Amino acid sequence: MRALLTRQAGRVVRVYIQQGRSDAKATEIEQLARAAGCALERIDAGRLLARLGDVVHQGVVAEVVPLAPWREEDLLKAVAESHNPIVLALDGVQDPHNLGACLRTADACGVLALVVPRDRAAPLNATARKVATGAAETTPVVTVTNLARALGLLKEAGLWIVGADAEGPQTAAQVDLTGPRVLVLGAEGGGLRALTRRQCDWLVRLPSRGAVESLNVSVAAGMLLYEAVRQRDASATGSP
Amino acid sequence: MRALLTRQAGRVVRVYIQQGRSDAKATEIEQLARAAGCALERIDAGRLLARLGDVVHQGVVAEVVPLAPWREEDLLKAVAESHNPIVLALDGVQDPHNLGACLRTADACGVLALVVPRDRAAPLNATARKVATGAAETTPVVTVTNLARALGLLKEAGLWIVGADAEGPQTAAQVDLTGPRVLVLGAEGGGLRALTRRQCDWLVRLPSRGAVESLNVSVAAGMLLYEAVRQRDASATGSP
Repeated sequence: MRALLTRQAGRVVRVYIQQGRSDAKATEIEQLARAAGCALERIDAGRLLARLGDVVHQGVVAEVVPLAPWREEDLLKAVAESHNPIVLALDGVQDPHNLGACLRTADACGVLALVVPRDRAAPLNATARKVATGAAETTPVVTVTNLARALGLLKEAGLWIVGADAEGPQTAAQVDLTGPRVLVLGAEGGGLRALTRRQCDWLVRLPSRGAVESLNVSVAAGMLLYEAVRQRDASATGSP
Repeated sequence: MRALLTRQAGRVVRVYIQQGRSDAKATEIEQLARAAGCALERIDAGRLLARLGDVVHQGVVAEVVPLAPWREEDLLKAVAESHNPIVLALDGVQDPHNLGACLRTADACGVLALVVPRDRAAPLNATARKVATGAAETTPVVTVTNLARALGLLKEAGLWIVGADAEGPQTAAQVDLTGPRVLVLGAEGGGLRALTRRQCDWLVRLPSRGAVESLNVSVAAGMLLYEAVRQRDASATGSP
């Protein structure tokens, strides 16, 4: 919310703060909303519940102009204008819950955009938006006709492609994620498709010490994004 | 599955391998099952679907004797007998999906057991088991009456307590997770309770660069467990 009011205040139509919240965070949001000229409303918990359903909201909610879907050109333009971007790509993730969960994590990790193929992929529907808890309004989703081709274009734009693969020769920590990167996660169960895999500069594995075959795709995305953020923090400060 | 057949073959009643699978992994599972004296059955995809529903299974499925729930004493005994354990604790996670997702990740990261409080916590029900995709049969869940007290006992047993907290003074990468540790995640939205927080030796923050307030608890658990595994791998090999 802080980030939204600071960076994209023009998209915030109205901010709701639950009555009774007067802690530092609520006060900061209130000040940011006033400074940005957003409408501000104190609302009781019951009305907030009626408006939102059982979404976890912590008492501060923004009504936001929906993010227009990006085309491939929008992505390439944003990449060109961006300093050291991370792009997340999902190769055939079919469960809207997983799409929403990946969006939420992508938002937390500062991902520029999420790329998904048009076919055999979860749509950004109401379920995905709900699970994303607002991240669908801040992190653009780019639907592409041909994922391998889109990865190729991102490669030409200077990003390296890193795919998560259970049989990858290196761990995620063993490859350099501090520069411009596309992180690619495969479908639940099936992993990366052959054409996607062929575009990857590195294939990296994530922890798999257990009896269960694979990680959930949104958890795997979280681990890989965590590792990228960790490496970037470490290289920025010179310490782990 | 490999780990289950190697470490706890006595609990495997029967292994089903989907007809047509003859790749290296299926062959290895078949050999392990034979070596362990488990019943083995080739089964067609339709019957497997009828038996399991739409669970992602990759064509190899085991029928396992359910894991008996652990009591606090079982946990302390296992900790005493374990080399360098990681225990995961969930403080008031109420959504069975999140419990199941945490179990699945805990299994992948070699967690000894998952600790949850009896009250205001998701039960290990059919939903949680399904989301755990088998990990509920391999990673024990310990339900305790008083989580803060259980953390105190684990502390006395030599484990350090690390809580995830959005306002933590350090990042997860800045604390040492290579020794015996309990990793504690708070409830969706609410974070750690005061009594739980007081037991923590370290409070660590996870990535939060976005507009959305917090990470999903199962993704946060994945990131913290990933970091522990990464540090342990690095200290074992002397490289990142």
